[in-house]
Amino acid sequence: MAGNVFGQMFRITTWGESHGRAVGVVVDGVPAGLPFSKADIQKELDRRRPGQSELSTPRKEQDKVEVLSGIFEGMSTGTPISMLVWNADARSSAYDAIKNTPRPGHADFSYMARYGIRDYRGGGRSSARETIGRVAGGALAKLLLARFGIRVAGHVLELGGVRAKALSFEEIVENVEKTPVRCADLEAAEKMLETAKSAKEGNDSIGGIVELVVRGVPAGLGEPVFDRLDADLAKALMSIPAVKGFELGAGFEAARLRGSEMNDPFCMQEGKVTCRSNNAGGILGGISTGLDIVCRAAVKPTPSIGKPQQTVDLETGDDTEIVIKGRHDPTIPPRMVPVGEAMVALVLADHMLRSGFINPRTLLE
Amino acid sequence: MAGNVFGQMFRITTWGESHGRAVGVVVDGVPAGLPFSKADIQKELDRRRPGQSELSTPRKEQDKVEVLSGIFEGMSTGTPISMLVWNADARSSAYDAIKNTPRPGHADFSYMARYGIRDYRGGGRSSARETIGRVAGGALAKLLLARFGIRVAGHVLELGGVRAKALSFEEIVENVEKTPVRCADLEAAEKMLETAKSAKEGNDSIGGIVELVVRGVPAGLGEPVFDRLDADLAKALMSIPAVKGFELGAGFEAARLRGSEMNDPFCMQEGKVTCRSNNAGGILGGISTGLDIVCRAAVKPTPSIGKPQQTVDLETGDDTEIVIKGRHDPTIPPRMVPVGEAMVALVLADHMLRSGFINPRTLLE
Amino acid sequence: MAGNVFGQMFRITTWGESHGRAVGVVVDGVPAGLPFSKADIQKELDRRRPGQSELSTPRKEQDKVEVLSGIFEGMSTGTPISMLVWNADARSSAYDAIKNTPRPGHADFSYMARYGIRDYRGGGRSSARETIGRVAGGALAKLLLARFGIRVAGHVLELGGVRAKALSFEEIVENVEKTPVRCADLEAAEKMLETAKSAKEGNDSIGGIVELVVRGVPAGLGEPVFDRLDADLAKALMSIPAVKGFELGAGFEAARLRGSEMNDPFCMQEGKVTCRSNNAGGILGGISTGLDIVCRAAVKPTPSIGKPQQTVDLETGDDTEIVIKGRHDPTIPPRMVPVGEAMVALVLADHMLRSGFINPRTLLE
Amino acid sequence: MAGNVFGQMFRITTWGESHGRAVGVVVDGVPAGLPFSKADIQKELDRRRPGQSELSTPRKEQDKVEVLSGIFEGMSTGTPISMLVWNADARSSAYDAIKNTPRPGHADFSYMARYGIRDYRGGGRSSARETIGRVAGGALAKLLLARFGIRVAGHVLELGGVRAKALSFEEIVENVEKTPVRCADLEAAEKMLETAKSAKEGNDSIGGIVELVVRGVPAGLGEPVFDRLDADLAKALMSIPAVKGFELGAGFEAARLRGSEMNDPFCMQEGKVTCRSNNAGGILGGISTGLDIVCRAAVKPTPSIGKPQQTVDLETGDDTEIVIKGRHDPTIPPRMVPVGEAMVALVLADHMLRSGFINPRTLLE
Repeated sequence: MAGNVFGQMFRITTWGESHGRAVGVVVDGVPAGLPFSKADIQKELDRRRPGQSELSTPRKEQDKVEVLSGIFEGMSTGTPISMLVWNADARSSAYDAIKNTPRPGHADFSYMARYGIRDYRGGGRSSARETIGRVAGGALAKLLLARFGIRVAGHVLELGGVRAKALSFEEIVENVEKTPVRCADLEAAEKMLETAKSAKEGNDSIGGIVELVVRGVPAGLGEPVFDRLDADLAKALMSIPAVKGFELGAGFEAARLRGSEMNDPFCMQEGKVTCRSNNAGGILGGISTGLDIVCRAAVKPTPSIGKPQQTVDLETGDDTEIVIKGRHDPTIPPRMVPVGEAMVALVLADHMLRSGFINPRTLLE
Repeated sequence: MAGNVFGQMFRITTWGESHGRAVGVVVDGVPAGLPFSKADIQKELDRRRPGQSELSTPRKEQDKVEVLSGIFEGMSTGTPISMLVWNADARSSAYDAIKNTPRPGHADFSYMARYGIRDYRGGGRSSARETIGRVAGGALAKLLLARFGIRVAGHVLELGGVRAKALSFEEIVENVEKTPVRCADLEAAEKMLETAKSAKEGNDSIGGIVELVVRGVPAGLGEPVFDRLDADLAKALMSIPAVKGFELGAGFEAARLRGSEMNDPFCMQEGKVTCRSNNAGGILGGISTGLDIVCRAAVKPTPSIGKPQQTVDLETGDDTEIVIKGRHDPTIPPRMVPVGEAMVALVLADHMLRSGFINPRTLLE
Repeated sequence: MAGNVFGQMFRITTWGESHGRAVGVVVDGVPAGLPFSKADIQKELDRRRPGQSELSTPRKEQDKVEVLSGIFEGMSTGTPISMLVWNADARSSAYDAIKNTPRPGHADFSYMARYGIRDYRGGGRSSARETIGRVAGGALAKLLLARFGIRVAGHVLELGGVRAKALSFEEIVENVEKTPVRCADLEAAEKMLETAKSAKEGNDSIGGIVELVVRGVPAGLGEPVFDRLDADLAKALMSIPAVKGFELGAGFEAARLRGSEMNDPFCMQEGKVTCRSNNAGGILGGISTGLDIVCRAAVKPTPSIGKPQQTVDLETGDDTEIVIKGRHDPTIPPRMVPVGEAMVALVLADHMLRSGFINPRTLLE
Repeated sequence: MAGNVFGQMFRITTWGESHGRAVGVVVDGVPAGLPFSKADIQKELDRRRPGQSELSTPRKEQDKVEVLSGIFEGMSTGTPISMLVWNADARSSAYDAIKNTPRPGHADFSYMARYGIRDYRGGGRSSARETIGRVAGGALAKLLLARFGIRVAGHVLELGGVRAKALSFEEIVENVEKTPVRCADLEAAEKMLETAKSAKEGNDSIGGIVELVVRGVPAGLGEPVFDRLDADLAKALMSIPAVKGFELGAGFEAARLRGSEMNDPFCMQEGKVTCRSNNAGGILGGISTGLDIVCRAAVKPTPSIGKPQQTVDLETGDDTEIVIKGRHDPTIPPRMVPVGEAMVALVLADHMLRSGFINPRTLLE
């Protein structure tokens, strides 16, 4: 049960290592009849790729996607859509130093414990480059969802301890790309940027919280009892490198509320059942209520830092020290936004198909 | 893809409603040759069942388990183990009132939106009685893990805003059953109990945080990239009713740390690689490091409260009010501890089999 | 990946051993809103149960089904439907003799090789009693399919070398239950019955071929490339004990035809595309054409025979002889008909859901 | 649940169309530490590719494989192995004629019924070029199995009505590649070749039977009750285009035998349990006995023939005629041999992992 497959009916299989020949994805389960083009995919990859700003690794990758199958005359055919991005700027020699000295906070040691061998160049399979496949697959999921009125928006809610103020869905959508930190509260964004720069100057890194909001989900989506919509969202976001926590709606705050504060009162609005508040985050009993789905992922600071760190030499069995070179982002959340959106979109598209809201066979009826 | 199955190689399928004839589970994937008895299962169910203390619903259920298959001469045979518990004290009439008026914070409305019909008696399938199957299955997972030196311990870390002090694994194991709140810090437990009682008296309820710790996991367990050990733990715990958040190790605190604070330095100890701290919570890159796995679930306050609440009448389409009767716990975390342990044990047993640490065929070799 | 689960969206999990306490099934994926009753299930179980005629084992089992969950006010609720049948007439002592001497043609040896332990009483899990769960699950699948105009009919096409003449779907449906051999060609049925009796008198057994026909399948059902409708049907039927072969349409005869004979010419009929012949058996490229699906399973003679047979003693490691006592059918196909129908119905129901022809959420829209 | 994934623990996902940019496969579940090279894959692809002899389509494809991931320093790393072959000689214009006139015996009509759109060039996804991914994945499965002493051999047992004599495993291995028909009985091979040529000259095609034999399988492999080894083999072979039947061991002949003839007597041989005959084909109760696994697939004649055939015009709704041009094999079985071997190897590798005979994590221990 190798774990490189995500989703049941809308299913992606990602492959590739940081310094291998390419990274890619096979997307299975896109219904026939969805119009799409390479540009739709590229747009999302461009948001993810390195070198966009001073906040991201200077690794030079154009990340130009190639679509190899599953499309005919500008439309999905219902067969698997295979996409890849060639690895270009792979400076492997920088990584020889880490062959036997696992980097703290990275997967180096646990991969060795598991496999007995690993492609250590750039983190190999555990590199964030793996998320290219997710973003490409997520781009198709977003397109599909959009046809059914569902939109996914992500933004950086907190970075290095600086928290954004509350924002509406439309404000997030409008502002998120205006600053390199992808915080839609532009004032907070300024402070976040300062904090990130100062951490970088100190050879250190910072973490943050990414929030994902989904608007337009019909009530009644999700599968009790294990494949709850929220359980699947949790798995989706926790599977992104560096994520250490997940919460839905009131989240951890819910632990401190009374029932009378937490419960969202139902009410009628324009003939439809809705709620006066959304502490539930749009999901009750694992099934959507029709309100916005609101969830958050806690992201740890980039483990690659310029400071010397204690580690061990796996060959000699001695304690030793490591100073990480290579190219790294001082903070992960800004670039994680499109990845988080992709994972959320994948879960939603999967459940829309599983629950029969979207015909899995074809859109051409 | 109905979602009543959990796990790949160690797999449970739960079934049953609160006021149906019985609730149960089929456990598939227990290797042949595991000695077990009904008492091993019953012990865990007794921790979960209602009526244990003033903190749990007075519903009278003995929850006596029956083992119907998969056992021969006191040992698992490798075939599915079917277990059930008959529902006894099912006072359905108490629930007629909620047929058309969804209870805030409950799954009533979302189930109706999804299915167009629901067994509304006692919450039907969305009742916490569904977790009986999880606990029965988890009991077998725990037995299996114990043979490989792996132990799972849960406790209430926080309740109604009262937080326990830091405790060692052995302290948790020793103290957790000493108080009805299942908090191993006995002083904090007293305060939690007070808070719970006072909430109950006020016709209200409180939430909390349950912590789960796993000791004895070998390094190298888990499947990158989607079926990470932490992603699967997140899904497992988020699938428990009332859980609104999940975190691993430093969790949401990680978002506020610097890389130099968050990273756990590697070091050698008695010839083995380990870490000087455990902010990672025992998992890096989705794979275990060999340190304790530490994770937490945020639990919302019991949605059933005695206060009048606003809701709607699904038949007339009018706003209305509801006062919930029936029998309910003023707080969920204490009874959730065995459920959380079960879910964690299920994930670990599944991955031990998936990763080849346990022979899936038979233990008799 | 224990293999006791069948189906993706319409999914059954069977459990139980021949001489355990009960055998049963959990059916997951029945959409909400399907009216059904215990009688619908019982009717199919009655066709399968032993003691119906001189052709079946005299084991006395009433096989009365209990429905434990998933039903409310006479309708499916979309939650798992758990059903069981208690084992009554379990004369285990008859089986002590086979504890260490595997019966030729049975699973005794291979189970021991796999598990190192087995419930040898009555064949344990490998007993045909396991198929009770399949038939109960299949009864629900049939009900669901019937609402969409799809009917499944099975009959014994060949028994002990006697072959029935070609029959129409309606003839099969009308005649199949008129004789204990379940051959709809009543003349051939007579001869089959003679052959079976004579084999029984000679302490021997005979095999045969069961044919399954499905009428009313819409064109466009099935999933290329691996989960083809025919590949899934093959797996379904090959998973029934004693089945040694599967064929679709012209089947093995296709190997001897020319392309110009084999190809079914397309033509228009009442405004719909159809074919002038049906060598394809209703499936092309793994996807249904809308014509009848016609497939066949080759069934070996009952392995339990009264004649002395050579075997080994697993304890001493010596060659030895065995004479099988216990109670057995002289031929399997007649009782296999309802099992075959069940498996075919399960595949069809699963694919109807997977392909979006049936709304997986609810029928109440 | 799009069906482009095969296997549970050793899992392939194939993608690509006949006239798209490329066809390929992602292989997930190869344990770390398996040495392999591009040449190992290419060797099998060369057996499958067109243009090898007068019996195969003259389409010019070199089918040179590229390995894009999952390999490091000549060894598998446990991460997904992505491979592709570029499509070169794609003469699409030849296929314009079939856009609206489905070819009898092909998937054209059923794909249109399902998807409402299809890439009709060269059959699109339903083309035999899809099997390139299977063969590439199967090459890795074979390599893995070989390390555990398991060998898979296929050959053409019957072609156009000409049947080969019985042959030993070693004879098959030695002779199969000596003639373009891949029949190891070289005399019969001559006659088969004649029959194929004469069919071709008559603008017609012939079918046949491919036999697959597996030697070296340990006893105890397979999963009762649904995921039986034979049920999975049936699905694997029935999923290959043009296969209409499957049988194991005595197969359809078993339907005509008596129990006393069919049952394979057990006996001891060099301290191991074995059987005096192998009518079972190496599998009892879905689990291997340790004897050779012997199964056969019935292959229909190539549906593309030069003769005029009746069909319909999907646009006008009229009956019409079609004469197929393009490039086609007059018979499929010879080129199907490597595909059949691949599918069998995939099933075996999957079950060796599932049953714990191979450590799924790593071979480096």
